[in-house]
Amino acid sequence: MTTIHIAASREYDVVIEPGLLTRLGTMAAELGLGRRAAVISDDAVFALYGAAAEKALTDAGFQVDHFLFPHGEQQKNLSTYGQVLNFLCDRRFTRSDFLVALGGGVVGDLAGFAAATYQRGVPYIQVPTTLLSMVDSSVGGKTAVDLEHGKNQAGCFYQPSLVLCDPSLLNTLPEREYRAGCAEIIKYAMLYSEDFLRELEETPVLEQFERVISVCVGMKRDVVRGDEFDKGQRALLNLGHTVGHAVESCSGFTLLHGEGVAIGMAIITRAAVEKGLCTPETLPRLLAALERYGLPTETDYPLTDILAAAEADKKRTDDVTKFIVPERVGHCRVEPVPADEVAGWLKAGGLR
Amino acid sequence: MTTIHIAASREYDVVIEPGLLTRLGTMAAELGLGRRAAVISDDAVFALYGAAAEKALTDAGFQVDHFLFPHGEQQKNLSTYGQVLNFLCDRRFTRSDFLVALGGGVVGDLAGFAAATYQRGVPYIQVPTTLLSMVDSSVGGKTAVDLEHGKNQAGCFYQPSLVLCDPSLLNTLPEREYRAGCAEIIKYAMLYSEDFLRELEETPVLEQFERVISVCVGMKRDVVRGDEFDKGQRALLNLGHTVGHAVESCSGFTLLHGEGVAIGMAIITRAAVEKGLCTPETLPRLLAALERYGLPTETDYPLTDILAAAEADKKRTDDVTKFIVPERVGHCRVEPVPADEVAGWLKAGGLR
Repeated sequence: MTTIHIAASREYDVVIEPGLLTRLGTMAAELGLGRRAAVISDDAVFALYGAAAEKALTDAGFQVDHFLFPHGEQQKNLSTYGQVLNFLCDRRFTRSDFLVALGGGVVGDLAGFAAATYQRGVPYIQVPTTLLSMVDSSVGGKTAVDLEHGKNQAGCFYQPSLVLCDPSLLNTLPEREYRAGCAEIIKYAMLYSEDFLRELEETPVLEQFERVISVCVGMKRDVVRGDEFDKGQRALLNLGHTVGHAVESCSGFTLLHGEGVAIGMAIITRAAVEKGLCTPETLPRLLAALERYGLPTETDYPLTDILAAAEADKKRTDDVTKFIVPERVGHCRVEPVPADEVAGWLKAGGLR
Repeated sequence: MTTIHIAASREYDVVIEPGLLTRLGTMAAELGLGRRAAVISDDAVFALYGAAAEKALTDAGFQVDHFLFPHGEQQKNLSTYGQVLNFLCDRRFTRSDFLVALGGGVVGDLAGFAAATYQRGVPYIQVPTTLLSMVDSSVGGKTAVDLEHGKNQAGCFYQPSLVLCDPSLLNTLPEREYRAGCAEIIKYAMLYSEDFLRELEETPVLEQFERVISVCVGMKRDVVRGDEFDKGQRALLNLGHTVGHAVESCSGFTLLHGEGVAIGMAIITRAAVEKGLCTPETLPRLLAALERYGLPTETDYPLTDILAAAEADKKRTDDVTKFIVPERVGHCRVEPVPADEVAGWLKAGGLR
């Protein structure tokens, strides 16, 4: 078992090992969490792993309830959030009880926001079931729901009490979700390590899940330790995200988050090379890695639509958009781009 | 001007002086807050003070928008909260901008929750316009909305950047709201100071607003410094609140919060005397103080209804209700009461 300790406003462990789901209950008991657990999940994930998660909890003596919602990014909204809160209130959950977020990024973000705000905060455990949520969204305490006109526009910083990563859950992960997760993994390599990119090129992620998850979580640990509340260096983790979110939004969320991030990274790297901020060899390296994992690197959505969607993005401060720009593989920086130059950047990135 | 510094996870000042509203803009500018302000208020308060608040902000160079909702506790719900968030998102507010909560407890709690969660947190200024919000709810960072079956069941701990108390705004406060505020003031005296109770008996609150607000905020400062996140001594501030919330809820929120607290304090003190936990002379002192300010000390709602409403209250942990119990004037303690003894307590308090 790999254990990575996260030193944030609440300290907690990320534990990684195939088969860990069966130990969910004993680990929750070791944390001294209260008697009642609410498993928050979506219909698709719960059908696969709900019974195992609940058995692990009841075997350890917990009383378990669950709240399910239909799967998909469309559900990550204030309405589902309100349903979770009312479910907790109607079942008389208290601050002594805890939540278990069983699912991918949508479940983790939404259940985390509910945990952050129900009775002003109850403990929660992240049990990520997708590659993307294991390597990224389940760690670091960013919780959120989407608003009508903006992704992740409402939320809190609120750390879990435990992140339990069981890579054996990835056996049922659809191919497309696997690839989407690889986009975030490639993002970590682009941000912090050329060696790691080489590993990803040489050995498929699916042959080294525990290792890859550990590397990414270790990188995220360092970022969260230095900048839990996203005032500085944590912004780098948004590499590919400003354009990525805009592309996802343009697609009506038929594109997966990881697919958006892949396209976003390709566009911003193309633009950075074009503007002389990034070494020319970086672009083919990135594109080859993305293509190796079957990820998209271009989009047909017109520049004007992407621009409109990007404008609602919260990384914008006043009239400046903060693009995360690769300088070379393993090294990126924040580039504040004035509003009237954003279109030029996106054009340089290949949008028309 | 009285300035009280609050040392919490975010440090800030509570400033108290008649006429301060005209200085809202310059004080916001001194804090280095961003260029855009969103004034969140209700229709009734905004009609009285909206123009003055907005003028103070625009005169200091801020760009100002406002979002208004109908006044009343019924509006403190997830639906209004969502409207505020969507307003901020649609108007493209960013983390560099700030909110101004202009109103009583409902506005402060709701706007504070929106500030806590919009883009995972934007700064906000509390401008309380009722006595109750000046002496209590605007200070300390408890934000909340009500759920379908429970008051204040969703929210965050999120401190403001400034609390601006202008007692001259109380000139338009309806008599009933004034009295409701006096209930929370009497609560502070019951908790911490017999001398203060004597002052309230001798000199009407309305003849010494700045002094009374300063005393209460000073007491709250000490509580928040020791227990910002409500894990221990801050619970004392709930004196009268468990029963008070239940009574409010039974009344369909036609009773004001302060009126509920007055009834709740009277009931719990009656019960505490009955059970030999409180000196007998405490009850007539409390009842006299409440009656002097025209506050109710009894309720006709039946015990069973109060019990059902109290069960949804979040101060409950597992099967124990934590009542705050006076031992004498100026001294209270937390009394954990097992579920099967709560009805007995309420009967001892005079409910039938």
